[in-house]
Amino acid sequence: MASTSRPVRIVDVAALAGVSPGTVSKALNNTGALRASTRERVCEAAERLGFVPDGSARTLASRRSYSVGLLSSDSAGRFSIPVMLGAENALAAGQVSALLATSRGDPVREQHHVRALLGRRVDGIIVTGRNTEPRRPIDVPVPVVYAYAPSQADGDASVVPDDAAGARMAVAHLLALGRTRVALVTGRADRHSAQVRVNAAREALRGAGLDVAGEPLFGEWTERWGRQATDVLLRTSASPEGPGFDAIMCGSDQVARGVTDRLRERGCDVPGQVAVTGYDDWDVMSLASRPPLTTVDPRLEHLGRRAAELLLDAIEGQPHHGLELVPPRLVVRASTTDD
Amino acid sequence: MASTSRPVRIVDVAALAGVSPGTVSKALNNTGALRASTRERVCEAAERLGFVPDGSARTLASRRSYSVGLLSSDSAGRFSIPVMLGAENALAAGQVSALLATSRGDPVREQHHVRALLGRRVDGIIVTGRNTEPRRPIDVPVPVVYAYAPSQADGDASVVPDDAAGARMAVAHLLALGRTRVALVTGRADRHSAQVRVNAAREALRGAGLDVAGEPLFGEWTERWGRQATDVLLRTSASPEGPGFDAIMCGSDQVARGVTDRLRERGCDVPGQVAVTGYDDWDVMSLASRPPLTTVDPRLEHLGRRAAELLLDAIEGQPHHGLELVPPRLVVRASTTDD
Repeated sequence: MASTSRPVRIVDVAALAGVSPGTVSKALNNTGALRASTRERVCEAAERLGFVPDGSARTLASRRSYSVGLLSSDSAGRFSIPVMLGAENALAAGQVSALLATSRGDPVREQHHVRALLGRRVDGIIVTGRNTEPRRPIDVPVPVVYAYAPSQADGDASVVPDDAAGARMAVAHLLALGRTRVALVTGRADRHSAQVRVNAAREALRGAGLDVAGEPLFGEWTERWGRQATDVLLRTSASPEGPGFDAIMCGSDQVARGVTDRLRERGCDVPGQVAVTGYDDWDVMSLASRPPLTTVDPRLEHLGRRAAELLLDAIEGQPHHGLELVPPRLVVRASTTDD
Repeated sequence: MASTSRPVRIVDVAALAGVSPGTVSKALNNTGALRASTRERVCEAAERLGFVPDGSARTLASRRSYSVGLLSSDSAGRFSIPVMLGAENALAAGQVSALLATSRGDPVREQHHVRALLGRRVDGIIVTGRNTEPRRPIDVPVPVVYAYAPSQADGDASVVPDDAAGARMAVAHLLALGRTRVALVTGRADRHSAQVRVNAAREALRGAGLDVAGEPLFGEWTERWGRQATDVLLRTSASPEGPGFDAIMCGSDQVARGVTDRLRERGCDVPGQVAVTGYDDWDVMSLASRPPLTTVDPRLEHLGRRAAELLLDAIEGQPHHGLELVPPRLVVRASTTDD
């Protein structure tokens, strides 16, 4: 481990990379015309030696501050924290500092934070939110990328989870297991993510010549609602042969956990009689559930990293526009298959 | 809401506060001798107008960068995130920017982040960790405050949760409810927080002429362990009159949730026969538990805020030394009392 007391200088990096100090400067500041291989060699040498360009000097030389604002409207951070951590990691790898600013859903506080970030001369801002509802864009003279909660303005760059693809993956998995009577239990009907996933699931079922078992049940994003919805499903569809469904697709891991708890309490075997899928792959829920949940991981850290990459592109004059969808990943566990 | 396009100037703040621009500068930069009431009036005016001093100009004028590093060794962030959010809020209120740096338990990455923060000329660093084990201090030429995970060096300023007080609160609550046979189920025996709480609970029980029912059970910080430990307790202490304990104090809300689940499944009424307490007040667990958990809230956001306050003091030349304990708060719910 390098010591902090003897700072690494630019000439050290130049020596290790076998280039001139001027080339090191160009490579690290992304200025001048350099071959990609040279730039890469310099960056590797800088990283190996732990070289940190002096922030103030760099700012004056390049008119960039090499800092980016991470503006979150969230408070608890269930979804925005992984996004921010992913972004911070990608920025740190590019020697860019992340200025944290949390507005906790308060627009006045957000305004204040935006002004503070601009006062800091950030090169750009990543905006994250507590859910995937499109949000009002911020009005600033630097590049912005919206992560998780997209901007309402079409031309803005937004990186969002591909919820429709996630729902299709869960349906395909259940169909591959031979399930044909799939019930849907999800959260708030006024939520974008609930609607997108239900619509995609219904479409995927119809594509296989099936339909949703019963009507999709909308409620809360809670375990309690999962238990209540299970009671409703059992009451409205029970027959002497058992429940009128062989799978329940849930809108979140919390809902799915409530569903598996209540199915077990009502004597239904999971996955023997009823397969259950969650959404989010929130380990606290998905692993603690009995049985552990097959679920869809929206890859929020990757989403944050991607937002940072798009922002760095924009800062370097290559802006992106419109929505970028991050493909999710199906995680198979014991709530759908005993194998 | 003020628009971002027409920046507020220092003369605007001076006019509103009824002072000279020089006084505004002194008040906001904490330089010069001003009456507290004047400083306050200026700060209020600046906040009302949304005045943001130019970062670079301020740095040059005062040799302070008005930025602070938030260095976390955590990855998932269950405990460090609330601490960081609390710190960020306190810093933002003081017009100080928070530079986020997460090392994910990797010492080499932490070294790199420390150098990057120093390269940014931060005025100080708040270090947080994933647990309350004392950690190796960082070696930097700026003030540091350790939050949640204290420094191993006695003279360093550390702000930590008062786990012993939390355990005493839970015991006092159970004793007030007339419980006398209190069993203890907690997490890893090699963890500081597990040991501190068990020792404090045992001492509090002895102070009331009682002892722990059976031996304290150490295991994992999981629901599964809570269920397993409940089976152990019921097996080793059952008698025709029922279980040999009337309360179970748990080392975390996850453990307590597993305990309540298994007690219910084994036909034990909570809190009728057995009262259960958790620790952490992690709402996902404490509210979803059946019944909802009486628990101890370590007030991690407050802890983060306090760390920021101590750091700002140190930056202004008034350093603190040694441990500061943050008093927790007991949150009473249905797992201990039906009232």
